[in-house]
Amino acid sequence: MSLQTFFNPKSVAIIGASRQKGKVGYEILVNLVAGGYPGKIYPINPKADEIDGLKVYPDLVSIGETPDLVIVIIPAQLVAGVLEECAKVKAKSVVIITAGFKEVGPEGKKLEEEIVRIARRAGIRFVGPNCLGLISPSHKLNASFGGDLPVPGGIAYISQSGALLAAILDTANANGIGFSSLVSIGNKADIDELDLIEAFGAQRETKVIAGYLENIKDGNAFVREAEQISNKKPILLMKSGGTEAGAKAASSHTGSLAGGEVAYESAFSRAGVIRCDSIKEQFDFAQAFANQPLPKGPKVAVITNAGGPGIMAADAIEQKGLTFAKLSEETKKKLAEKLPAAANVHNPVDVLGDALADRYEFAIDIVLDDPNVDSAIVLLTPQAMTQSKETAEALVKIAKKKGKPVLACFLGAAKVEPGIEVLRKGGIPQYDCPESAVATLYVMSEYVRWRGRPKRVVRLFSVNRRRVESIVERHLRQGLLDIGEAEAKDIIEAYGFATPRGSIATTADQAANIAQQLGYPVVLKIWSPDILHKSDVGGVKVGLRSEQEVKDAFDLMMYRIPKKKPDAHILGVLVQEMVRTSGKEVIIGMHRDPHFGPLMMFGMGGILVEVLKDVSFYLAPLTAEEAKQMLVNTKTYHILKGVRGQEGVDLEAIAEGLQRVSQLVTEFPEIKEMDINPYVVGAPGTTSIAVDARISLEKK
Amino acid sequence: MSLQTFFNPKSVAIIGASRQKGKVGYEILVNLVAGGYPGKIYPINPKADEIDGLKVYPDLVSIGETPDLVIVIIPAQLVAGVLEECAKVKAKSVVIITAGFKEVGPEGKKLEEEIVRIARRAGIRFVGPNCLGLISPSHKLNASFGGDLPVPGGIAYISQSGALLAAILDTANANGIGFSSLVSIGNKADIDELDLIEAFGAQRETKVIAGYLENIKDGNAFVREAEQISNKKPILLMKSGGTEAGAKAASSHTGSLAGGEVAYESAFSRAGVIRCDSIKEQFDFAQAFANQPLPKGPKVAVITNAGGPGIMAADAIEQKGLTFAKLSEETKKKLAEKLPAAANVHNPVDVLGDALADRYEFAIDIVLDDPNVDSAIVLLTPQAMTQSKETAEALVKIAKKKGKPVLACFLGAAKVEPGIEVLRKGGIPQYDCPESAVATLYVMSEYVRWRGRPKRVVRLFSVNRRRVESIVERHLRQGLLDIGEAEAKDIIEAYGFATPRGSIATTADQAANIAQQLGYPVVLKIWSPDILHKSDVGGVKVGLRSEQEVKDAFDLMMYRIPKKKPDAHILGVLVQEMVRTSGKEVIIGMHRDPHFGPLMMFGMGGILVEVLKDVSFYLAPLTAEEAKQMLVNTKTYHILKGVRGQEGVDLEAIAEGLQRVSQLVTEFPEIKEMDINPYVVGAPGTTSIAVDARISLEKK
Repeated sequence: MSLQTFFNPKSVAIIGASRQKGKVGYEILVNLVAGGYPGKIYPINPKADEIDGLKVYPDLVSIGETPDLVIVIIPAQLVAGVLEECAKVKAKSVVIITAGFKEVGPEGKKLEEEIVRIARRAGIRFVGPNCLGLISPSHKLNASFGGDLPVPGGIAYISQSGALLAAILDTANANGIGFSSLVSIGNKADIDELDLIEAFGAQRETKVIAGYLENIKDGNAFVREAEQISNKKPILLMKSGGTEAGAKAASSHTGSLAGGEVAYESAFSRAGVIRCDSIKEQFDFAQAFANQPLPKGPKVAVITNAGGPGIMAADAIEQKGLTFAKLSEETKKKLAEKLPAAANVHNPVDVLGDALADRYEFAIDIVLDDPNVDSAIVLLTPQAMTQSKETAEALVKIAKKKGKPVLACFLGAAKVEPGIEVLRKGGIPQYDCPESAVATLYVMSEYVRWRGRPKRVVRLFSVNRRRVESIVERHLRQGLLDIGEAEAKDIIEAYGFATPRGSIATTADQAANIAQQLGYPVVLKIWSPDILHKSDVGGVKVGLRSEQEVKDAFDLMMYRIPKKKPDAHILGVLVQEMVRTSGKEVIIGMHRDPHFGPLMMFGMGGILVEVLKDVSFYLAPLTAEEAKQMLVNTKTYHILKGVRGQEGVDLEAIAEGLQRVSQLVTEFPEIKEMDINPYVVGAPGTTSIAVDARISLEKK
Repeated sequence: MSLQTFFNPKSVAIIGASRQKGKVGYEILVNLVAGGYPGKIYPINPKADEIDGLKVYPDLVSIGETPDLVIVIIPAQLVAGVLEECAKVKAKSVVIITAGFKEVGPEGKKLEEEIVRIARRAGIRFVGPNCLGLISPSHKLNASFGGDLPVPGGIAYISQSGALLAAILDTANANGIGFSSLVSIGNKADIDELDLIEAFGAQRETKVIAGYLENIKDGNAFVREAEQISNKKPILLMKSGGTEAGAKAASSHTGSLAGGEVAYESAFSRAGVIRCDSIKEQFDFAQAFANQPLPKGPKVAVITNAGGPGIMAADAIEQKGLTFAKLSEETKKKLAEKLPAAANVHNPVDVLGDALADRYEFAIDIVLDDPNVDSAIVLLTPQAMTQSKETAEALVKIAKKKGKPVLACFLGAAKVEPGIEVLRKGGIPQYDCPESAVATLYVMSEYVRWRGRPKRVVRLFSVNRRRVESIVERHLRQGLLDIGEAEAKDIIEAYGFATPRGSIATTADQAANIAQQLGYPVVLKIWSPDILHKSDVGGVKVGLRSEQEVKDAFDLMMYRIPKKKPDAHILGVLVQEMVRTSGKEVIIGMHRDPHFGPLMMFGMGGILVEVLKDVSFYLAPLTAEEAKQMLVNTKTYHILKGVRGQEGVDLEAIAEGLQRVSQLVTEFPEIKEMDINPYVVGAPGTTSIAVDARISLEKK
């Protein structure tokens, strides 16, 4: 069922409408009327006949027709009954404002589960409970107690905090920011962020989807759907609860489980979602996306009537990694022809402090025509002769014709207010400092880059899936959740990794025999399902070069380890060839995130991963490009690629390894965590070796 | 001469006063009068008798007394003459508004040099030229054409961009931000940022000094003086021209040479100057410093009437590295006693959406009394019953009593405006999002930390200064600016570094003899004043283990290098013991910045410095603490300190090495650049060895 009825209902019933000023049941009715809602309004309250001249009905049934939208404000205990009534009259779209559900504890959680059950059965979709309502300015629908109806515009907003929505509305109304819709999703017991993102994705009037979220209900579905929608319109999210303190505050507030930050970052990156660090930043971005075309590239020109702010913009452009546009000779010549001699015809173009609107107009027109310019920032400081209003008018007029994004930063307050007013109405976003305008252009050009990414194709390797199945099944059957080294290697071998040769010895003589066959030097490793960190108990001995050394090492392990780990079931000792490659050690790992599923990790081995935490993450399944990007995203990538004439390692082998593990963990959701560490990678053409592997399972 | 007369003159003469509206000579006069300036005003213009009822004088002399302050607005060519006139009447304080000097090219530069000469001779101090003037609200002095007189307050502002000052003034006046002084310094031909920082440092009404600068005139003096003043009051600077594009724009604008960013960072860090990334951020910080006490520590409490913004604040506190205050049991108990059951009595304290002012007042009072709380952020969202004005009043009242900084973030616009108005008047800074308030508290607590730093004591090592003098003098006399390896090592040995033993051989046999004495293995290095990068020409051969290998290597160098570098004067080959320590290789370096002098560098050697650019910088002379801090500031510090049970290296030896080089380059300003690379450092107690050194000189 489409949610569009929520935003454009022909009639609205308000269950719990009140005649008492200050009560939510009154405020919502007043807001609906004050917003000029053109449809029919049915206030419902068995104890009243009329409110502010509107006829009041005792219940839904007595209206005599099915209202498109039902707003519910009555106490929590009565909401279930009202939903049954909705079912009876076939009302399908409900907003439950009422609080007192999951957020107040176990009792409320039960009530919430009940209303979800009723709604599911009756095919009812609802927003809330515990929310502020919803607003749809282009249909003059203000079914909320959040504030006055804002002007229509291109931004759709979803908020998991009602109070925040009220603050946003107040700020937006003061600044003339327009919205297509605003929804307070409250406890999101039924309709959640994803439903709304989908609905807004399909809404013609919505140009950009923005939201404040404390958690995401279904991580996998979110990534899948948000990626589709991001291809059409940008999604800007403020996701809080990111840090430990924040997450604690989040769970004490809404009982929502905050997901791992890394998983969120990966999910947003995959889905093209733009993460915002503050509400201010979010609206800085949203206004540009809603009102301006996307830039074709990263080249930014600046036009200013004062040097200082021009330099600030130039600094910010470079710091952000955008390109400071180099104006063409033709542009500079044209500018020089009409601008005063003291003007700067290079970027940032300085039209000088005495510039009137016509000089700005002339310069902006020429600069925007330059093919070396993808976007422009127009700065204005209030000087003696400055015409903020006329300059803004010129800006609006020219920007419309050029198909390039133009952002403004009129510095000051009262003196530039007339200009800012014109900019607002003309759809030119205005920023409070040059740095904010630059940050916005950066995000726009990153979004364009994301949209231009290659199509995601996940390669499927030919593997021995059955072998893994049998190991995994047996372990789960026996209740063993950690897979020992030998079988862990069997698993990754089945998925195409080369591992060091070796076998298990149960006596010192047998160990020496195996070593003989492998050739010296060898490595000995204790083999026990109960010992995961072998080094910690002295269970690893490397570089053994003779029969005697092997026997000594074997016997020492057999003598010492049972003392340290009396309960460990020791099956023997793994005798293994020693990998003597000049390659680099890397780690390929996976951690299954509870919200978003398998999260792949890549990092340099040894000290670099431990000290520098130089690792990168991405959600599985990985494409070849994503696997390679994981390498590029580490600081140590240059070391792998080869520096100062040193030959690099086989990057393809690492990327393929990542994809193979990605396939493994996608095909076996029972694998909870794993890593291959070290994965020794040599020069291109040599065989990379998975020296050690660790896999743990979980019951599904 | 004190500059205080500029800010509190008994009389002001305006040379170039005009009766023509729109002209600067008229606007300044009007601003001065409109600001309510209580002193005498002498408009000077030979072509007028009176302007707006004020008597006009034909020239300075005819006034009959010496004006405390002279404002000059006449054309550039006439300014020199006016200064002569000032000298005649003994006027000492002048503001030259007039443009057309250095900023317009060589002609103007000459004029500027001339007025500086005249002023110096006559003991005149002047602001400008090419500026907007100055403003001193507490003395009702608006000697500018930047805008209306703002309210008095604790912020002193210095701007190198006049237009920016006008914008700041406009914004500040709209928001009721108060100033002690504002000065547009223009070309700062005489009075510069440092003079003003000193003057504001001495002004009782100035609580915080802020400024926008494109360059700093005298780096060394700036660091010295700013550090003194930062101990008393914070200095907040926005320094632009930081990036390449910005610097280019800066030089095309004011002809100022932008200094290296690293040097600026070090200088600001040494001097305790707080660098701001935007004007918005600068005023976020300045308002708190001007109106609130400093925090005693990093522990922040948050009080809110809505969960969402509380979580945002918590996230930001953790991200910034501040401490999310853990409220005492007593505090929580007290809060629980009176707050509703659903309220959160943990930090962030949620007083709930229906909180009136009294509930906020109760919570703020208790939370601020908690010894675990160093500062607080009060968040407010406009909900149905919210009393923004009354809450602000309570906040102002309580905050005054507690001696802890309290910042507010009232989200919204019209609905919270009455509250924001109260906050402004009550000196509680208001922020547009929780993140900005947190960023401000972070900067305040960093400033407190800086003020509490230990006294700077630079240790002086006993060294052989004379040895270095003779080497440096000889090189300079002979016009040799690069010092060869052997003598570079002599220099660092003279300053206490151990270097590998070795001597120069001119024949293969001699090389073998030296090797014999040193003991194998040895290293051979070509010795030529003309070859600085020895490896590039095959001039380094390591790990030679026998007489034959030494002779072969010697002869090969003698055969091959002259072919590659036919012009190089080859003096022989250095035969050196091979340093076989298990230590780590680090780099100690110095680069002399044109503005701030010797800039010390520290980094890990090898791939880490080249790939990760993991280096840190600081201005010499270094204290022991600063030297250690340079180590801590690298990411690889943990590797040096020892990780995972690995023993660390001798950190003291590195810190001492840094201090010794710092002493060397401070005592020898002729040393332009140098590095010791690698400096091999072993476990504590072992001798660290300076394996190679490179020193270059410049004529002083």
